[in-house]
Amino acid sequence: MAYYQLDENKVEDYIKTLPSMKKIFSSFENLEVKEIGDGNLNFVYFITNKKNPEETVILKQAVPFLRCVGEDSPLSKDRMNFEIMALRKESELCPDLVPEIYYDDKEMALVIMQNLNRHRIMRGEMNLGKKFPRMPEDMAVFLARTLFFSSDWFMTEKTENWDAMSVTKKEKVKAFVNSELCTLTENYIFSYPFYDQETNEYSPDLKQEVIDLIQKDGTLKVAAAEIKYKFMNNAEAMLHGDLHTGSLMVNEDETFVIDPEFSFYGPAGFDIGLLLGNMFLAYIAQDYHQRKLGNDPKDYREWVLSAIEDIWNGFAEKYDTLWKNHQTEVEYPYWNFEGGEEAFARLRKNEILRIFRDSIGIAGSVMIRRTLGLAKVSDIADIEDTAVRAELDEQALRIGRELLLNYKTAGTIEEIVKMAKEVSPL
Amino acid sequence: MAYYQLDENKVEDYIKTLPSMKKIFSSFENLEVKEIGDGNLNFVYFITNKKNPEETVILKQAVPFLRCVGEDSPLSKDRMNFEIMALRKESELCPDLVPEIYYDDKEMALVIMQNLNRHRIMRGEMNLGKKFPRMPEDMAVFLARTLFFSSDWFMTEKTENWDAMSVTKKEKVKAFVNSELCTLTENYIFSYPFYDQETNEYSPDLKQEVIDLIQKDGTLKVAAAEIKYKFMNNAEAMLHGDLHTGSLMVNEDETFVIDPEFSFYGPAGFDIGLLLGNMFLAYIAQDYHQRKLGNDPKDYREWVLSAIEDIWNGFAEKYDTLWKNHQTEVEYPYWNFEGGEEAFARLRKNEILRIFRDSIGIAGSVMIRRTLGLAKVSDIADIEDTAVRAELDEQALRIGRELLLNYKTAGTIEEIVKMAKEVSPL
Repeated sequence: MAYYQLDENKVEDYIKTLPSMKKIFSSFENLEVKEIGDGNLNFVYFITNKKNPEETVILKQAVPFLRCVGEDSPLSKDRMNFEIMALRKESELCPDLVPEIYYDDKEMALVIMQNLNRHRIMRGEMNLGKKFPRMPEDMAVFLARTLFFSSDWFMTEKTENWDAMSVTKKEKVKAFVNSELCTLTENYIFSYPFYDQETNEYSPDLKQEVIDLIQKDGTLKVAAAEIKYKFMNNAEAMLHGDLHTGSLMVNEDETFVIDPEFSFYGPAGFDIGLLLGNMFLAYIAQDYHQRKLGNDPKDYREWVLSAIEDIWNGFAEKYDTLWKNHQTEVEYPYWNFEGGEEAFARLRKNEILRIFRDSIGIAGSVMIRRTLGLAKVSDIADIEDTAVRAELDEQALRIGRELLLNYKTAGTIEEIVKMAKEVSPL
Repeated sequence: MAYYQLDENKVEDYIKTLPSMKKIFSSFENLEVKEIGDGNLNFVYFITNKKNPEETVILKQAVPFLRCVGEDSPLSKDRMNFEIMALRKESELCPDLVPEIYYDDKEMALVIMQNLNRHRIMRGEMNLGKKFPRMPEDMAVFLARTLFFSSDWFMTEKTENWDAMSVTKKEKVKAFVNSELCTLTENYIFSYPFYDQETNEYSPDLKQEVIDLIQKDGTLKVAAAEIKYKFMNNAEAMLHGDLHTGSLMVNEDETFVIDPEFSFYGPAGFDIGLLLGNMFLAYIAQDYHQRKLGNDPKDYREWVLSAIEDIWNGFAEKYDTLWKNHQTEVEYPYWNFEGGEEAFARLRKNEILRIFRDSIGIAGSVMIRRTLGLAKVSDIADIEDTAVRAELDEQALRIGRELLLNYKTAGTIEEIVKMAKEVSPL
């Protein structure tokens, strides 16, 4: 169907034209449509049968501009293609960790999917002191499966079925070239926060000498430039592309990953680094939030750190196992020699360490970006006391700085967590 | 024009239909057409006006199969698109180092270009003891310019004109996804030679214990797997993709780079490594050839080693200068701080070292591939005395092995050359 922009009134008529919606809604007579927005880019509608609220879906439509800025800021609605492609692959690999897709239409730049109305955005819930015991394991599974099965370690000499075609990894990389959204990441994560750029925004109380620790440190800026280059060049695996704590919808039993419109093929460490960086920001912020809630901040922050360790260690173990099992299945003769098994184990170990180091560099960049750059995280930015906020911002910059300065030699997540505790004590 | 396969008879009629050929040939009455083949993939015709031999062109047409194997071995004629795209860009960047294109037709999968009839393939000329004093500098220029200007260090936030469009680097990467020919490289360079694979071929006198130094060494095979992964994933710069000494046409005054059908965006070290690996093979082989010609092998081999040093050092210096000058032109504010200039110099140094190390790993893989794998180099493979050949093959494997084992810590080309002289003394 040729593109037109929906609104609350048009959604109902549109929904009624779709045969697949008849499977969801027993009747179209009492539909309620509410636009909620998903923040920066798109329009998101809840559509519910008032007579039976179990019958509910989400409709997400891209518009040909950057919603948070306005119609003057064009952004191709093609981004919805990337979201649809990524959602489909993610749900094939991790059906319990992404919303079910009911319908998609590339021309209309929209997707209709499961309404996660028993779940909430994790970032906000963390600020309320809730713990999510299943999340680290779920995220380890999500990361290991999406990254391994889209990489050349799995896809070499293979094709996968995709849009009724048989495609190689190279053909998928090509389809996933997501220029516009990658350019946003390149600029807003890896470039602008590192110099005095006009779109930067930060706490008025943040001291210039702390900003200079980032913007005037040659070693750190060399590291950031190298990490940006990897982001731009290394098309290793299908990424979510924007995997922060606001892209997770959770409750005590389940974890869902949403909003993959930034999806592309990039460094395997990127999603992991983004998530870890955001978790470290939460670690810093929760000293304030939990105290304010009357909770023991130490207990909650210890949970955040253990979640960070569990995400990484869980990922590393699962990625290694998937790879090892795959090798057994395909019987690739390359490793068939005395000592071959150990050598293959060493390759896996080297590779996982390489992914770890990239993750650490990316986590550092993300912490700096969320502090000096344009888009903030509510964990810290919503704190009204500017002196407190400046203190937490400084911690974020100091941890981010350590991550970037040491990414090439980082060894274990436990060492990284130890460093974070030194900069921002429990 | 819809595709059909030319032959010596059809070429003349085809040429006459092309207006651009009227600028080359004063008359079509006395054309002589000779098919010479370019070896493995395509059909190549010399077309000359017998009355005026200065009026001469080369026509190269791809056929939809692998010529050296036969019609049963399909290979898309689309490879000619890559050759045309690469030739156009190379000739924009280095007009004196690639043949002039007179006409191309993607549908017909052909290109008509300058007949380099005063030049010869460098590999054969080296086996005859000829030196090419301009070649190292020319190749340093070719490598520095093609690799720098196609990389993100130059292309960030830029577009270039291409086929009447304005395209970003990401769009070019996409257009240059060259799956079929990259798969050949992945298999025949980086995989098959490293285990007992059926297509492998080598000297009957080569000792199994020497082959085992490659095929049963875990550390070496981990290194080869890592280098292959970089080849498959890191779309850094537009590569020639097959830059061996048989892809250079030379005389004392000029160097031309031909046959870029393997072109794609890959690791910046790939072309350099391929060329250096082939030069090291020549270094090994020339002990035999120059002796046989009655020349002093030491003198010639010293020239080969000095050419290796000059290619790398010339490339490194030129790449650094191009990058530094570009930074001055664009006035990117990222490096505008006290110490910024030194930091930027450090980034360039790190990056050039990274390219060097990748080159060394690739050179090692190439030397091993040319010795154990399917496609040989005439430098060594044409030696009839199988005992001599086995000795030289062993040297090639031992140097290749050292390169792969040490690629991650390699520092200077002089150290590498010293190692080569230890394995294969002057």
